[in-house]
Amino acid sequence: MDKRSTLMETEARESPSVAARLVERATPRLRELGERLRLLSPRYAVAAGRGSSDAAALLAKYLFEARLGLPTVSAAPSIRSIYGRQLNIEKALVLAISQSGRSPDLVEFCRSATGPDVLRVGMINDEASPLADIMDVLLSLEAGPEKSVAATKSCIAAMTLVFGLTAHWRNDQVMIAAFERAPDVLAAALVEDWSAAEAFFDGDGPIYVIGRGPGLAVAAEAALKLKETNGLHAEAVSAAEVRHGPFALVGPALRVVIFAQRDAALDGLSKLAGDLEALGSAVLLVSSETAHGQAMVKPDAEPVLELLAMLARFYVLASATALKRGRSPDHPPMLTKITETR
Amino acid sequence: MDKRSTLMETEARESPSVAARLVERATPRLRELGERLRLLSPRYAVAAGRGSSDAAALLAKYLFEARLGLPTVSAAPSIRSIYGRQLNIEKALVLAISQSGRSPDLVEFCRSATGPDVLRVGMINDEASPLADIMDVLLSLEAGPEKSVAATKSCIAAMTLVFGLTAHWRNDQVMIAAFERAPDVLAAALVEDWSAAEAFFDGDGPIYVIGRGPGLAVAAEAALKLKETNGLHAEAVSAAEVRHGPFALVGPALRVVIFAQRDAALDGLSKLAGDLEALGSAVLLVSSETAHGQAMVKPDAEPVLELLAMLARFYVLASATALKRGRSPDHPPMLTKITETR
Repeated sequence: MDKRSTLMETEARESPSVAARLVERATPRLRELGERLRLLSPRYAVAAGRGSSDAAALLAKYLFEARLGLPTVSAAPSIRSIYGRQLNIEKALVLAISQSGRSPDLVEFCRSATGPDVLRVGMINDEASPLADIMDVLLSLEAGPEKSVAATKSCIAAMTLVFGLTAHWRNDQVMIAAFERAPDVLAAALVEDWSAAEAFFDGDGPIYVIGRGPGLAVAAEAALKLKETNGLHAEAVSAAEVRHGPFALVGPALRVVIFAQRDAALDGLSKLAGDLEALGSAVLLVSSETAHGQAMVKPDAEPVLELLAMLARFYVLASATALKRGRSPDHPPMLTKITETR
Repeated sequence: MDKRSTLMETEARESPSVAARLVERATPRLRELGERLRLLSPRYAVAAGRGSSDAAALLAKYLFEARLGLPTVSAAPSIRSIYGRQLNIEKALVLAISQSGRSPDLVEFCRSATGPDVLRVGMINDEASPLADIMDVLLSLEAGPEKSVAATKSCIAAMTLVFGLTAHWRNDQVMIAAFERAPDVLAAALVEDWSAAEAFFDGDGPIYVIGRGPGLAVAAEAALKLKETNGLHAEAVSAAEVRHGPFALVGPALRVVIFAQRDAALDGLSKLAGDLEALGSAVLLVSSETAHGQAMVKPDAEPVLELLAMLARFYVLASATALKRGRSPDHPPMLTKITETR
C-alpha cells in the first residue's frame, strides 16, 4: 500500500484548510458568543463529548479553568441515559462537541442539560444532526465530510474552536491573534520530518502517553488513536498521576510518549522524560525544544497552538506506523464511524 | 512467601472494622454536615484527589450527580500548582480526599479553592496533615495507620464515607441504612472464594477494567492496583467509551475485567461481556449474578455497596496474584507511600 494513500493521512493534512475556514467563518459568531458569555457570566461550564470529541471537551476544561478561572464539569452522559437523573444546572455554559451529532447518550444528556440562564453551545460537524437541533448556539466544525473512522481533522477543528472560543470570551487580542495563525502553525507542523520517530512504534507492549494541563487532552486523543489505528495498548496518563501507581510499570518494557508544550509544565515534563529514560523506558518527547529532536514542531508563543501542531503531525505519524504494522488505519477492526453509546 | 503474609491483604481485610468505626464515629458529623449542606444548597461540587483517592473522588462525582443532581467538577490541581490560576468558586462544596493529606499540589489547590459560600470538606486519614489544617470540615477516614504502599482500606473508607455523605445529605433513610450495613457487606465479600479467578492474571498483555456509572470509579481503582502491585498494564475504560477507539484491541490478546453492579447499567454490561467473549477476549465478570460465577459477591439492594464489596475482595485477589507473579505487593517498584506531585 502506498504510504500516502490513507484517508486518515489525507484528512489530517486537510487540518490547515479546515482551520482557515474556521477562522474565516466562525470568527463573527465567536465574537458575538464571547460578548454574550461575558454578559451571562456563567458560574461554571459542563463539557461533553465522546471518543475524540471527549479529548476536545477535556481541552475545553483546561482552557476554561486555566484561562478563565471557570470550574468545568466533564459530563458523564450516563447520569441521564442510564440513571435517568437530570442535573440541576443554572447559569452555566453547556458545551457539547461531536463530529456526527448522533451519539444517543450525548443527545439525551444535552436535551436534559438545561435550566435558568443555561446556554447550550454545540461544536458539531454535521449541522443536520439531532444534536445540532437541540443546541441554542451552533458552531460548525467546518471540517467537511470525514470518511476515515479515525477522526483527525474534526478533532483538530474542535480543539481549535475551543481555543478560539476561549480567546473571544476573554476578548484577549493575543489569544485571538494566535487563533488566527492556527492554519499556518498546523501547515508548518505537517511538513516536519518525523520519520525517525516511526520505529518507536515497532512491536507491541505497553505505552503511556503523557501530558500535563492542556497537553493531557492531546495525550488522550493520541492514545486513543494509537489503540484505534495501531492496535497498541497506549494509555493517556497525567504527568502528575504517573508518579502514583502507574510508575510501577516504568522500565525497559514500557514506552512513553510525552507531549511537552512550552509552558509552565515544560520543566516538569522534561525532568520526567529524563527520569523515565534513566529507568530504562524509551521516551518519544514531542516538543518544540531543539535539544530533543525526534518529533519536533516549531516554537510558538501560544503553547496550545504547539499542542495542536503536535497532534496534527502525530496523526500522520500514526497513519504511517499503522501501515508499517500491517494495519489499515482507515478501517480499524470492529469500529464504525458513528458509535451509538447509550 | 506465605500467601497470607502481605500487608496489602492484611490491611484490605481490615476494611470491615474500618467501616464499622466510620459508621460509629462519622455518623453524628455526617448528620450535621448533611443538614448544613441542605441549608447551603451548593450549586455544584468540586472533588479532588490523587491516585486511589482520585478514584474515590470519581465515585463522589457519580453519586453527587446521580443521587443529588449536583454537577461535579473533577479537580485538576495543576490549574493552580502549575498554571497559577485560582478558580472562581462560589456557593459550592469542595471535597478533598487524601490518605496522607500531604500531596503538595492538592494542598495548594485546596488552599486556593475558596470563595463566598464555599464549604471545604476533607476526607483525610492523617488528621495531623497540612491538608487537614486547611479544610472547614474534617472527616477522618478512620483507617488507622496504612503501611502498604498500595492503598486499600483507606480507599474503601473514602468510598464508604462518600456514600455516607450522600446518604445524609439526601437524608435518605434507605441509603443511611445501607451505609450502616457496609461493615457486614464488606466482611461477607472478604470470605467469598475467588481462587478460580487467580489464573486470569497469569502472564502479561493488555487488560481493560470496565465499569459504568459508579462502577467506573471502582474500575479506575482496580486498574491502578493491577499496575501498582501486579505490574500489569490495566486501563480503566468506561463501558460507553470502550465502543469508540478502545474496541480496536478486542480479541484474544486482550483480557477484560468488568465490574457489574446490579443497577440500570447491568444489562448493558452483561451484553458487553458477551460481545467481548464472542470476539475472543477473556472476561472476568465481577458480579452478584449467580449465572456468572468466577468473582462473586452477595447481591445487595444498594449497588454501590456491591461495588465496595467487589473492590475489597479484589484487593485480596490482587495481592494473591502479585505473589503468584513473583512480586511483592507491599513494595511496588519505584513507588513510595506519599507521592509528592506538584
